[in-house]
Amino acid sequence: MTTTRTWQDRAAPRVAEAGEGISYDELALAARNHAMPAEALQWDVTPVGLHYVLVHYDIPALDPDGWRLRVDGGTGSSVELTLDDLAAMPQTTTRVTLECAGNGRALLEPRPVSQPWLTGAVGTADWTGVPLTDLLDRVRLRDDAVDVVFTGADHGTERGVEQDYQRALPVDEALRGDTLVALTMNGAPLPVQHGFPARLVVPGWYGMAHVKWLTGIEVVDRTFDGFQHRAYRLRQHPDDEGVPVTRIAPRALIRPPGFPDFMTRERVLRPGPVRLEGRAWSGGGEVVRVEVSTDGSTWYDAGLGPSAGPHAWRPFTADWHAEVGDHVLRARATDASGQVQPDGPAWTRGGFANNGGDAVPVHVVAEDA
Amino acid sequence: MTTTRTWQDRAAPRVAEAGEGISYDELALAARNHAMPAEALQWDVTPVGLHYVLVHYDIPALDPDGWRLRVDGGTGSSVELTLDDLAAMPQTTTRVTLECAGNGRALLEPRPVSQPWLTGAVGTADWTGVPLTDLLDRVRLRDDAVDVVFTGADHGTERGVEQDYQRALPVDEALRGDTLVALTMNGAPLPVQHGFPARLVVPGWYGMAHVKWLTGIEVVDRTFDGFQHRAYRLRQHPDDEGVPVTRIAPRALIRPPGFPDFMTRERVLRPGPVRLEGRAWSGGGEVVRVEVSTDGSTWYDAGLGPSAGPHAWRPFTADWHAEVGDHVLRARATDASGQVQPDGPAWTRGGFANNGGDAVPVHVVAEDA
Repeated sequence: MTTTRTWQDRAAPRVAEAGEGISYDELALAARNHAMPAEALQWDVTPVGLHYVLVHYDIPALDPDGWRLRVDGGTGSSVELTLDDLAAMPQTTTRVTLECAGNGRALLEPRPVSQPWLTGAVGTADWTGVPLTDLLDRVRLRDDAVDVVFTGADHGTERGVEQDYQRALPVDEALRGDTLVALTMNGAPLPVQHGFPARLVVPGWYGMAHVKWLTGIEVVDRTFDGFQHRAYRLRQHPDDEGVPVTRIAPRALIRPPGFPDFMTRERVLRPGPVRLEGRAWSGGGEVVRVEVSTDGSTWYDAGLGPSAGPHAWRPFTADWHAEVGDHVLRARATDASGQVQPDGPAWTRGGFANNGGDAVPVHVVAEDA
Repeated sequence: MTTTRTWQDRAAPRVAEAGEGISYDELALAARNHAMPAEALQWDVTPVGLHYVLVHYDIPALDPDGWRLRVDGGTGSSVELTLDDLAAMPQTTTRVTLECAGNGRALLEPRPVSQPWLTGAVGTADWTGVPLTDLLDRVRLRDDAVDVVFTGADHGTERGVEQDYQRALPVDEALRGDTLVALTMNGAPLPVQHGFPARLVVPGWYGMAHVKWLTGIEVVDRTFDGFQHRAYRLRQHPDDEGVPVTRIAPRALIRPPGFPDFMTRERVLRPGPVRLEGRAWSGGGEVVRVEVSTDGSTWYDAGLGPSAGPHAWRPFTADWHAEVGDHVLRARATDASGQVQPDGPAWTRGGFANNGGDAVPVHVVAEDA
């Protein structure tokens, strides 16, 4: 009798070469990690379940009663806190647009093989929790502190290295004051896939810094070089030492107008005036300009909506008179630090921080066509 | 200057041939439609945001104040109900395991090109709402009723046909008494992607019947043959008339033991005793037996956990002594109607109802290996 083959054993490519279709390994990641569907750009705060999710290993199911957060100053001074301890401390709420460093990876050619994001690895939430500085105040920090290391409860292997997920922040970043140990997302306890019962939120940084299922915070006297720090670097070739992935590069996304075809996701809309809208964000400072092009060569300024703080995406709108035919809608953002989003892709070996300008093809068709 | 190409215009295949990698059209669907990650099999009720989601077009954002549900008996007798009207009616709660008819499609060879589900298009929720029969009692039904047609607010095109999503139930099914117009999911208002403010829940049927963003219910005197009824049929060749996709075929899924590799999702676990666990369900009746194989040839009965009703998945466990080496764990379910899940894939042109037995490869490795 024929038994079902595992997806790891398909006739189709398991690991695709550049220029080939997506492999089964990539598909399995695309299925379990969730993109924000583009129509969710209509909401200031991404509805529950539509915010992007990237989980390196399995989602751990932590018992909130047994869970402890260990904070270690590196001096012999440490404290273990319960969830009740954290909830009893003063809480801060920040609206943060969170983006995966791999967003846009699958748009690169050749395509780096990892989680194959198109442009949906983003979402915005109101995170509430305890400022990291308040937790570090509970212990005596070492004078020679260099990095603060955060450990999650998620456990697995990557390129042969078995590990709990760990990331660090330089101590200056950790003490900036805007990093939270978040206990709620949009006013409710964290969903399991977003790090229940507590996660790090580092406004302005790509998602790999926002350690979920947080169990430990430790101050160390060296630059932490754990696996995830060696992995998340911008490299051009195998011997390139590269530079660390840190803050989110500017990006604007257009909410696709009209309605879609199920299979191709191509958009259909009617000729006439169309109000284009979208959202733009950057980890380098507030978005101060968004430009739109409907013909691929001329650009005009979109109108910017109100700011919801330096770390949240900003809405934009642009009026367009849609003529019958095929068009590609484009947008690019500029932030307060002067960074301008490139029109073309930003290729790196890992497929990180590709903030190449958004491009949405649309078919403008008369109703009676 | 080079601008970003759209994903519809990649060098890699946009539409892949059988045996090739996944196409970009399929990837775009895999990104926006969410699978339940396999570790979520540990929960009786799927946590919010981890339940599978399949949306044919865009998620519509409906204003609950302006929303109306029109119920039309086909006799000139009709009623328009507000959300408050529905909420004031007696409410029923049912625990339902919901599965997409396309679950398992991407495991087929050749692979039908559509939403490329592996095995994650499933989830279980407590749905609360108004029994459909109570709504039909509000109008005078035609004596020659054949089908009841349900219309959703989601709008798009499929194979050139522009449409609001519509599906029908035979009148006998509609009057069985277990179909709900659900207003809440797990005690909270429906998440937008699950049909806010109201959706149909048809216990035991594949997901295509559970019309979301419901706006209309109409009794008609003919077998409804809308697009989605022509699409969701089990066919073997282009001229095959086929049979309609209706109730969920039995399936058991194993919660993958151990921990994963990030990229390959392959599992690592330690040698020794392992308690395997999983969930099994069927739309043809309660699951009465689950068999497990760890060697691909011999099968033994798993222990069944308590039933949570005829429409909810049932937990199972099986003890295994894991020896060092590579193994494939398999499971198959039998339901109360005598249907036995096949070990091998069930191929159809549309890739519907492929309930071929689950197969989870694991690597058993000693800790010091």
